[in-house]
Amino acid sequence: MMDLIEKTLSKQNIYSGKIIDVDVDEVLLPNGDTSKREIVNHTGAVAVCALTPENKVVFVKQFRKPVEKVLLEIPAGKLEEGEDPKEAAYRELEEETGYIAKDLELIADVYTSPGFANEKISIYFTDKLEKGTIHLDPDEFVEQVELSIDEINDLVANLKITDAKTLIALQHLLSIYNHYK
Amino acid sequence: MMDLIEKTLSKQNIYSGKIIDVDVDEVLLPNGDTSKREIVNHTGAVAVCALTPENKVVFVKQFRKPVEKVLLEIPAGKLEEGEDPKEAAYRELEEETGYIAKDLELIADVYTSPGFANEKISIYFTDKLEKGTIHLDPDEFVEQVELSIDEINDLVANLKITDAKTLIALQHLLSIYNHYK
Repeated sequence: MMDLIEKTLSKQNIYSGKIIDVDVDEVLLPNGDTSKREIVNHTGAVAVCALTPENKVVFVKQFRKPVEKVLLEIPAGKLEEGEDPKEAAYRELEEETGYIAKDLELIADVYTSPGFANEKISIYFTDKLEKGTIHLDPDEFVEQVELSIDEINDLVANLKITDAKTLIALQHLLSIYNHYK
Repeated sequence: MMDLIEKTLSKQNIYSGKIIDVDVDEVLLPNGDTSKREIVNHTGAVAVCALTPENKVVFVKQFRKPVEKVLLEIPAGKLEEGEDPKEAAYRELEEETGYIAKDLELIADVYTSPGFANEKISIYFTDKLEKGTIHLDPDEFVEQVELSIDEINDLVANLKITDAKTLIALQHLLSIYNHYK
């Protein structure tokens, strides 16, 4: 196997923001040439696929400025500084939906766009929910939606799920359901 | 349903690079307050889940500078200016793996990180392959790997697939296989 690693020769910080930082690295390629790599730094995120006692999945509809659309997504949010991903998942689920999970199972742990960003998202599943309290950030506006497994089957089959983490979670859920059907 | 849309009040370009541009938008929130949104602009990408006549999936191993790791991914690449996604998928598959697809089926079309980026990735499937010619970009170093369905089942079940687009494609593939098993 060839050595694929690119060594950093220099790093230039372009932008330091609220959600992301942007660096441009000069790297040494495996063949000895140099190149530039643009890197978006992100603290990481969590998402939760939560199934209610009525066998419905809890979603949030949220306007996403980068894509200028309202997307249907499972509840999610970014890690706070030093926060454990599972703790963040419990927190985000309650904040966005008002549900408290009694436990969470990790079902996927993936980089969303490793070509230009280091964001990693940990996706959890729960079917043990209690009622808590919605508590949104001041600049967060979301609408809660609950959909049945049949509705989700249709959305996935017709390519109507347009958010990557949500599709990963729903495909996982459907694989369990179709396995036991 | 409440109006979730955020109107752009002003837009500031922070960076214009090779793969990404970065803007910071000032937006009007649904409650009348203002906030900032950091937006990474990307032309979009394509990926291909390709099954060989031997029932193996074609992967590339590639060092991803943002995450400082070699990742196992399905072949993928970004759209060229004005390029049709399906044409890009045919092109990237041959360039990275040396396989020519005789047809491609769209299996997912998702935003990878809609909280901060507008990248959309179109993911295709094919099981009709012919041999073509590998042709990598000058700064692209990848290693080809082919894995069986059983090996993929193990990787997915043990959360060893760490790239979002790759996990979406493999979950889709396994759902077909397990359905007909």
